[in-house]
Amino acid sequence: MTVLSGVVPPVVTPLTENFEVDYPSLTRVIENLLDGGVHGLFVLGSSGEVVFHDDASRARIIEHTMKVAGGRVPVLAGTIDPATERTIANARVAQSAGVDAVVVTAPFYARTSQAEVGDHFRYVRDALDVPVIAYDIPVCVNIKIERKTTVTLAREGVIAGLKDSSGDDGNFRFCLLDLADKPDFFLMTGSEIVVDNALQMGAHGVVPGLANVDPHGYVRLWNHAKAGNWEAARKEQERLCRLFEMVWVSLPRTSPGAAGVGSFKTAMQQLGIIETNLMARPQRRIEGAEVARIGELVRAAGLGA
Amino acid sequence: MTVLSGVVPPVVTPLTENFEVDYPSLTRVIENLLDGGVHGLFVLGSSGEVVFHDDASRARIIEHTMKVAGGRVPVLAGTIDPATERTIANARVAQSAGVDAVVVTAPFYARTSQAEVGDHFRYVRDALDVPVIAYDIPVCVNIKIERKTTVTLAREGVIAGLKDSSGDDGNFRFCLLDLADKPDFFLMTGSEIVVDNALQMGAHGVVPGLANVDPHGYVRLWNHAKAGNWEAARKEQERLCRLFEMVWVSLPRTSPGAAGVGSFKTAMQQLGIIETNLMARPQRRIEGAEVARIGELVRAAGLGA
Amino acid sequence: MTVLSGVVPPVVTPLTENFEVDYPSLTRVIENLLDGGVHGLFVLGSSGEVVFHDDASRARIIEHTMKVAGGRVPVLAGTIDPATERTIANARVAQSAGVDAVVVTAPFYARTSQAEVGDHFRYVRDALDVPVIAYDIPVCVNIKIERKTTVTLAREGVIAGLKDSSGDDGNFRFCLLDLADKPDFFLMTGSEIVVDNALQMGAHGVVPGLANVDPHGYVRLWNHAKAGNWEAARKEQERLCRLFEMVWVSLPRTSPGAAGVGSFKTAMQQLGIIETNLMARPQRRIEGAEVARIGELVRAAGLGA
Amino acid sequence: MTVLSGVVPPVVTPLTENFEVDYPSLTRVIENLLDGGVHGLFVLGSSGEVVFHDDASRARIIEHTMKVAGGRVPVLAGTIDPATERTIANARVAQSAGVDAVVVTAPFYARTSQAEVGDHFRYVRDALDVPVIAYDIPVCVNIKIERKTTVTLAREGVIAGLKDSSGDDGNFRFCLLDLADKPDFFLMTGSEIVVDNALQMGAHGVVPGLANVDPHGYVRLWNHAKAGNWEAARKEQERLCRLFEMVWVSLPRTSPGAAGVGSFKTAMQQLGIIETNLMARPQRRIEGAEVARIGELVRAAGLGA
Repeated sequence: MTVLSGVVPPVVTPLTENFEVDYPSLTRVIENLLDGGVHGLFVLGSSGEVVFHDDASRARIIEHTMKVAGGRVPVLAGTIDPATERTIANARVAQSAGVDAVVVTAPFYARTSQAEVGDHFRYVRDALDVPVIAYDIPVCVNIKIERKTTVTLAREGVIAGLKDSSGDDGNFRFCLLDLADKPDFFLMTGSEIVVDNALQMGAHGVVPGLANVDPHGYVRLWNHAKAGNWEAARKEQERLCRLFEMVWVSLPRTSPGAAGVGSFKTAMQQLGIIETNLMARPQRRIEGAEVARIGELVRAAGLGA
Repeated sequence: MTVLSGVVPPVVTPLTENFEVDYPSLTRVIENLLDGGVHGLFVLGSSGEVVFHDDASRARIIEHTMKVAGGRVPVLAGTIDPATERTIANARVAQSAGVDAVVVTAPFYARTSQAEVGDHFRYVRDALDVPVIAYDIPVCVNIKIERKTTVTLAREGVIAGLKDSSGDDGNFRFCLLDLADKPDFFLMTGSEIVVDNALQMGAHGVVPGLANVDPHGYVRLWNHAKAGNWEAARKEQERLCRLFEMVWVSLPRTSPGAAGVGSFKTAMQQLGIIETNLMARPQRRIEGAEVARIGELVRAAGLGA
Repeated sequence: MTVLSGVVPPVVTPLTENFEVDYPSLTRVIENLLDGGVHGLFVLGSSGEVVFHDDASRARIIEHTMKVAGGRVPVLAGTIDPATERTIANARVAQSAGVDAVVVTAPFYARTSQAEVGDHFRYVRDALDVPVIAYDIPVCVNIKIERKTTVTLAREGVIAGLKDSSGDDGNFRFCLLDLADKPDFFLMTGSEIVVDNALQMGAHGVVPGLANVDPHGYVRLWNHAKAGNWEAARKEQERLCRLFEMVWVSLPRTSPGAAGVGSFKTAMQQLGIIETNLMARPQRRIEGAEVARIGELVRAAGLGA
Repeated sequence: MTVLSGVVPPVVTPLTENFEVDYPSLTRVIENLLDGGVHGLFVLGSSGEVVFHDDASRARIIEHTMKVAGGRVPVLAGTIDPATERTIANARVAQSAGVDAVVVTAPFYARTSQAEVGDHFRYVRDALDVPVIAYDIPVCVNIKIERKTTVTLAREGVIAGLKDSSGDDGNFRFCLLDLADKPDFFLMTGSEIVVDNALQMGAHGVVPGLANVDPHGYVRLWNHAKAGNWEAARKEQERLCRLFEMVWVSLPRTSPGAAGVGSFKTAMQQLGIIETNLMARPQRRIEGAEVARIGELVRAAGLGA
């Protein structure tokens, strides 16, 4: 497997005003990230609105991403479905497209047990030739992938990494400690706002949605951390925290989902990267004074002209 | 729209040992329900393991159900997907197959707001010619369809009914009161164990998964209630409560999902209705002493030879 | 032990404008309940704002209640404290005052296990000569007293009854079924809005806070149920449901606690029963248009002049 | 106000086999902490089992602590009660005993709103002459003190600091950023396992229960951080993380509370600091193989002979 490390943003999926994937904008999103120096791409994650896209659309998005990336960095693809068989089917499509790894959550909608979550990953892994990265996001799937499950699956060779979007930094640290003897196991944080901390703990990678807006910032943060310059890392992180405040601007008029990714899209539109800030239905669109406020945050962070 | 009322069980989806839909068994499931006197069928609900099936499999299950039902009772189909567009696509397939209504949950995985949930139903309704029934199941989708949302959507003509699997009986009662002037709005409880109460409140229908095991029992309960014979209704309900204890037999070895629908399948297998008690992956199978215990509960309820 | 059954309202604790207990008003609250025909009194429950009062104040409230009740009906006292020893100390005070039973929750603030909850009741019971009633209110104490715990403690003779304010009507029904052979075990619902259902299930008593506003209504409901007149019970319950809408009037300006008991106090003030609608600090007071709206609901329910 | 910073452990309250406070042991606990070089003491926090002690016992514990501390370091006292008036009463006792600050949670048991939480702190502050530190511990009190509430109360001068035991490190960081212009506002983390991260963010203090077992470790960690030696801080933190594993040893036989503080007491007993590992009732005691396992962790961390 390609060794993964560094800044691996979850790629936002831009839409046209007709709610179709806007591929020219998607190209610009990816080029903007690569210009920023990111070390990998994670397409069809939560920030990519994966569950809003059907199988055909997902396949096209992966293909397009692979073509634009052109081997410059590794590409991970989210294959996020409620249960095992549908996950395998989508993961095979991603594998055929040549992705470097698939990223898989615990099952959702139906309530599964921790043991069944483990089996889910085993079944998926058995059906594929591509590495599987576990995606721990209890706020979406209603179950945490427990430390013991992560470590067991890692030692069995079932999963090649973990993307931790649980917000449980202590648990993440124990996973790092438990798997310190497996340096090829890829432990990534999904946080935007405690990335310096995660790197100080020893995280191998970071997957910040906000990097769609400011990839240079997260790459600088990564480089400061690699150089052991923790004070500079903290300053960069604090600037990014202030930028991150955009995710609360449209609450509670919109949902947290629409407020978060929608604010990234709004900022990216203002920066000329994408055409619209539209979110897939039924998510409400950020508008009016919210847009203006996000613009202020973008400029305050030193972005834009 | 067909006027809906009465016992409308969520049809279990039997599997072969190869994890394929077992259509001969599905035929027997449906015939057993119709023999029991049920007033409608709800295919591809949570008890039908809907999210475990891909679009093609769902279409076949609906087609098969329509063919077996043959117009003897109305058929409702669950079109349960994380977001709007995929829900519409599946609902159109169900509509083409001739179902009497589609049953739709709030979006899931992505977190949506109450306003966005309302829009979701509006978008779905606009795209269809078939009635839409809202399915309130927060334990699976992480958001409750609030009373105000239900009543607003009912008055707008967006939804034709509500299947309440939230367990919030007080809220259900207020929906009944608020919509007392709309007798064609179909309010159903998803409970197995307080059905007599729901009917006493004025519920129009009941959707008990356990009716797959004992349809006669729920039809008797319905008939007692219609006759105002509440003491007999209570006795029947209490017998069914004792039978319902099967859903806890395999906990915590299996998940609640596998324990619940899995116990229905186990009982149905023992009653000769279906071939296997297999659940879709990654749900663990009920086995050994658990199977024996479920058999005891079945016989104690007066079922079987 | 006195056999308990019937309508046993949780007595509201009126305050003066100086945040002191208003004993003349408390006398009127109790007399109003007894005039309404209630079968018992539950003082210092959640509706009595028990945790807002210190030990000395609690002792005085109990004494006053005992004096006013004068043996006309049984009196239960809530002895609700975070842990075992303090519960015992307060329960002994209540016992000395001659209450018929004490009502005890699971421990709170500190997280305890189900086994420790069981031990808590055992320790409390061992220290007393008065019956102990378990109070299941997970919304306040963060842990449910599980069915198995309730039944075990009942069979051990540790608890003499259960007040169920969990909202889990199915679980309540199973407790009723499991303990059907112990008719002296007192199973009460804390609901205001599904009381007819609880009685249909076989509940021995009801503890509705709203009975402070309309005791006659709940007594009529009880009498209809005892007579097997379920249709009349339902009608009475529906009228009371409409009255109950007062508990949402001041949301979200106030907390749910202040909105609920505060609305009862507001209505009672309008009915001339108490002097102020003040809640203990830091709960905000219902005011302005909220007061007017509650007055409308009171009059719509046929109360007042 | 005394400027607070550094390692301020929550002092464990040792018990005799008769469930009385063991004052000679408490003296040793405090001396052990001071020998370890801690910068302050927090008595009657959650780790001190505050809610298990009645008012008289709390007063004695504070007095004893003040006497033993003898002015060598500042002393904070938890005055943790369900509502405003009782909090004020206990806080006045602590104030009279000469504590440097009182530590106050949001109200609990009764559900309050964010606005009412703010008022609670305002009322408490108005009644005292001693600084008030807000204690954010939603797992115990069921409500988070939101960032906006914290910042507003800080700017109003109502609270002098925040002890964050919410586990929400991102929110803690935003509080640090928002209040960066108020260096006298004391922001402390309650974490044991991400203390290096909190200090990297700029936290002014740390309140780790585990420091009762290994005060030297946390003081070394603090000193490394102050020196900007983050790699050494990380190594020390990782050693402490391994020691922290003791808190899971007795789960699920005991509750999380009994497992956590109980493991600290078990280790302290083995280190000769206290006489028993007893917890206040109804918490179950750590015993048998659990004790042995904790001993292994203690020795593996380099503690003991």
